[in-house]
Amino acid sequence: MNFKPITVDPDKIYDYSFAIIEEEMGEHHFSDMEWQVVRRIIHASADFELGRSVVFSHGAVEAGIKAIREGKHVIADVQMIVSGSGRKRFQKYGGDLHCYISDEDVSQEAKEEGVTRAIMSMRKAAREHEGGIYAIGNAPTALLELIRLVKEGIAKPDLIIGMPVGFVSAAESKEELLKLEGIPYITNIGRKGGSTVTVAALNAISILADQV
Amino acid sequence: MNFKPITVDPDKIYDYSFAIIEEEMGEHHFSDMEWQVVRRIIHASADFELGRSVVFSHGAVEAGIKAIREGKHVIADVQMIVSGSGRKRFQKYGGDLHCYISDEDVSQEAKEEGVTRAIMSMRKAAREHEGGIYAIGNAPTALLELIRLVKEGIAKPDLIIGMPVGFVSAAESKEELLKLEGIPYITNIGRKGGSTVTVAALNAISILADQV
Repeated sequence: MNFKPITVDPDKIYDYSFAIIEEEMGEHHFSDMEWQVVRRIIHASADFELGRSVVFSHGAVEAGIKAIREGKHVIADVQMIVSGSGRKRFQKYGGDLHCYISDEDVSQEAKEEGVTRAIMSMRKAAREHEGGIYAIGNAPTALLELIRLVKEGIAKPDLIIGMPVGFVSAAESKEELLKLEGIPYITNIGRKGGSTVTVAALNAISILADQV
Repeated sequence: MNFKPITVDPDKIYDYSFAIIEEEMGEHHFSDMEWQVVRRIIHASADFELGRSVVFSHGAVEAGIKAIREGKHVIADVQMIVSGSGRKRFQKYGGDLHCYISDEDVSQEAKEEGVTRAIMSMRKAAREHEGGIYAIGNAPTALLELIRLVKEGIAKPDLIIGMPVGFVSAAESKEELLKLEGIPYITNIGRKGGSTVTVAALNAISILADQV
């Protein structure tokens, strides 16, 4: 056996990874700002197909940066997204990360109304927050409900990152997001997605908010 | 617009998803127990290629079930894995989920020794726990260090779920795991992996521990 524990600087691991991604990705149609996000999504998934499937509404990354700098809050559909995100980059501007899916009132209301907790967590978020960044990586029902709340004028997100994964309603929920007008969004085409790539998008934007 | 919030029972969403996965997967070489794990990995990633790349050492799933029922603890490399896992299914047998990467002593020791926090978190886990299930979905350095600790007789995991993702050392760390003898493991070939698929594997095994 001839390997030793790899002790390279985490920043260097990122630099080296990003260099590999740049080289293997080749040509693409993303803007410089969008590419910062897509590159990190590819880094988190090792999946160029997923990276190429990402779609941005015009100015979505800039809208996210603005929201973070204004101290807007982030609402996630699942706790994994909160755990994986660099919280301090939001808190320094006054915002924070929230996930309501395990709240007792959300569970109770979901049971009473016979809907998923994900749906109820979006309704709670819309009550609690004016605007904000919605980061949805798991539950298609959360994304569909958020779109409904937007259309009914109840929610007005600064940005929706909608990348739920799965075989039932995930792709369809993202198709609905693509039709949504007037709200900045980041999503992807197809079944793939998930908490880790949603975190990657969110972290990329929060890093840009610190840098640009 | 003609969609309504989807309010189907989460169990039914799983059943329907699994039926789609069964149909699209077609033939495979996994045992019945292994397939329970792979199916959930595909469910969490919508990626059949990733599912087909999963490798089990002989009896790995059974070893995981046994460890959970004996109340062995789970050590994760990142907090996302702790957040995404159904903790109660471990606690009912006396085990729990742990992640040491953000502990102050781990950070301090990593700085002093000039190695990654992931490496130090594995050393702490080996000091704190006799055996246990190691669930590594993010950091190749954690997996490489765990393999080193096993070879030096310092760690003796009941099961290693080693599915780090990425472009630097991830695939290589999993190749090293494939060569490891005497310790049950679940891993996959290539760059793909991540916290969500590691959680999927862990949850599949903990559900089996409850059922079989």
